[in-house]
Amino acid sequence: MNGTLTDEAYARAALTYLAEPADRWLVQSLKVHGAVATLDAIKSNRPLGGGRGAPREATKAAVERWRTRLPELPEPERVLAFGESGIRIVCPGDPEWPGQLADLGDDQPYALWLRGTADLRFSCLRSVAMVGSRAATAYGSYVASEFAASVAARGLAVVSGGAFGIDAAAHRGALAADGVTVAVLACGVNVPYPTAHAELFDAVAAQGVLVSEWPPGRHVSRLRFLVRNRVIAALATGTLVVEAGQRSGAVNTARHARDLRRRLMAVPGPITSDLSAGCHQVIREWQGTLVTSAAEVIEHLSPVGEIVTDGQPAAGPGRAASARQAAPAFPRDLLDLESARVLDAMPRRGGMGTVRVAQRAGLAPAATATLLGQLATGGFVERCDDGWRLRRA
Amino acid sequence: MNGTLTDEAYARAALTYLAEPADRWLVQSLKVHGAVATLDAIKSNRPLGGGRGAPREATKAAVERWRTRLPELPEPERVLAFGESGIRIVCPGDPEWPGQLADLGDDQPYALWLRGTADLRFSCLRSVAMVGSRAATAYGSYVASEFAASVAARGLAVVSGGAFGIDAAAHRGALAADGVTVAVLACGVNVPYPTAHAELFDAVAAQGVLVSEWPPGRHVSRLRFLVRNRVIAALATGTLVVEAGQRSGAVNTARHARDLRRRLMAVPGPITSDLSAGCHQVIREWQGTLVTSAAEVIEHLSPVGEIVTDGQPAAGPGRAASARQAAPAFPRDLLDLESARVLDAMPRRGGMGTVRVAQRAGLAPAATATLLGQLATGGFVERCDDGWRLRRA
Repeated sequence: MNGTLTDEAYARAALTYLAEPADRWLVQSLKVHGAVATLDAIKSNRPLGGGRGAPREATKAAVERWRTRLPELPEPERVLAFGESGIRIVCPGDPEWPGQLADLGDDQPYALWLRGTADLRFSCLRSVAMVGSRAATAYGSYVASEFAASVAARGLAVVSGGAFGIDAAAHRGALAADGVTVAVLACGVNVPYPTAHAELFDAVAAQGVLVSEWPPGRHVSRLRFLVRNRVIAALATGTLVVEAGQRSGAVNTARHARDLRRRLMAVPGPITSDLSAGCHQVIREWQGTLVTSAAEVIEHLSPVGEIVTDGQPAAGPGRAASARQAAPAFPRDLLDLESARVLDAMPRRGGMGTVRVAQRAGLAPAATATLLGQLATGGFVERCDDGWRLRRA
Repeated sequence: MNGTLTDEAYARAALTYLAEPADRWLVQSLKVHGAVATLDAIKSNRPLGGGRGAPREATKAAVERWRTRLPELPEPERVLAFGESGIRIVCPGDPEWPGQLADLGDDQPYALWLRGTADLRFSCLRSVAMVGSRAATAYGSYVASEFAASVAARGLAVVSGGAFGIDAAAHRGALAADGVTVAVLACGVNVPYPTAHAELFDAVAAQGVLVSEWPPGRHVSRLRFLVRNRVIAALATGTLVVEAGQRSGAVNTARHARDLRRRLMAVPGPITSDLSAGCHQVIREWQGTLVTSAAEVIEHLSPVGEIVTDGQPAAGPGRAASARQAAPAFPRDLLDLESARVLDAMPRRGGMGTVRVAQRAGLAPAATATLLGQLATGGFVERCDDGWRLRRA
């Protein structure tokens, strides 16, 4: 929060307190009346019409249900004050909102709470979700951290769920490679669940970003983990199941990725290991691509521009062109002003140090460093011996 | 050998002594002049015309090359005498000749030397080649023997190459399940290579069959192993790579299976194991089907009649109808006389013991038992509590 909060943003923030995600009547009310009117109706207990096919009794019941949480609703000042803890809210249409979430249709989050330094939209433009079992084996944990470190070093963000096992190994691998990692939580971004991951989450916030559909302070529930999985699948360019049992949460995430036509991959393992059975299921039954190295993961992720710009991945599960040559994910003229200034400041040929880029762009060096990192995640620039340089399309 | 040997059979047997398999000029001479005339030409050093495009000089050079081994050539009486060691020769068109070898085109063997009790053609009608590394891990050996035992218990023959490691585990698994196994060797069927497998080969001969393109007494060579692999792939309905390194002999066999449009499968393993890299290559690059159980192997093998009757597997790598319901692989009226008599003797409904079937068929019980086993392999009959019964189409 930069000291301002639009009515729309406040209303959507408020709605994350009052309703669970993908609430059928709330989605309909948002479509018909918008967030501000919907929040007003709840606060004043004056149900709005639900639009075609929505009987007034249903919306009345819905409003009554949402009103049960009114005591938890913070004032706009308190929402703004979360900014002091590094927590911000982003709404559909905001510069940091990941456009690919629109692929979720009516199940798109009302808003997302974020904590961390990385720009969520930039981070997810070239990203891979790595998911798997909490009770991972040494093999699975090793593969998750190695793959995460390798793909993160190549500029891809590693998206996962912050849990024990594969999730933690993936986050830690990306962090170890000084990469960006995105933890999509089933609780508030200031709630350390599991508690043993409090330090991990702080590290993710320092180098990546924590994401939640639930407001600060909200706790996990079994259902919330499942609901959360669709966001992991939707945010990332592709989903990799590293090690998972059949009918596990990771397989649930993989199913979302398939339904969303994201790239789906799995790491094979011994057929004698129950924790590889979910991976083999993904390969056998859902045409997930078997991957044996981080290079294959990167190769399999198509230029993500196609997902961002029209919501469709490149044709089928075939081999994508090498991601190394991926064009920037969306046109330069869609960049926000400061990012565009940094990009304009880059030399046509060769590399340039961050301070010099900052001088040419007329921005502070620290802010420029952050923007360069985001532009790298977006595929516009890359590190080189001299600092940063433009990437060839 | 049943005490007789046609001129054609003797000529082809002789040619396996004189030429290596898939000899370009010999193939052409066989097509144009037949085996008997070709052998006469070699023995008398009077080169025949090679047909269109074959200059006389080339056939002359070829005949001279083949003549170098004339001293090794046995007389017909000696070829017949191999029968005393249980060794027989089968030629294209013989009742025991596997028709699917025609898929090899010009690379079809001139003849095959066999040692063992099983009928080669019947055995291979429902069969799976299991191939893999000589230096198999405990994991690979375990999977090979378990899968082989399971598929053999379901009436499929297990085809492999008689080598250490995966091959041996596959043969032994099939033998342990009282199943049929086929060892395709790169040396004579009376040559124990590796020597440590002398007992294994005797056991295969007692319960299955040893196969070779090379005559008795001939030794292995590096090239012969590679040449042999095409026969393994061609004989079996499908090929399963259990555990193999990249660029290994097993991957070479898999390549033949793919080129021959046989079903291709591989067992996944840890990506950290070099000996699973070939399996993952087969899945990733050649669209081999990942299999995690013997049931999946059986499921993936389509009714083999399609391969036997027109040389084509069922459409693509999709899931085949359950092999349990597979129709017999070829029409009853193509059966040899004794098999047809056994089949005619079977009751329309319910089961019948071997001795009663033998009585009705007018055959010796031992011979009837062998024929019933072959008919089972061919999908015509199956075991039941009362002995044997007809299989439903």
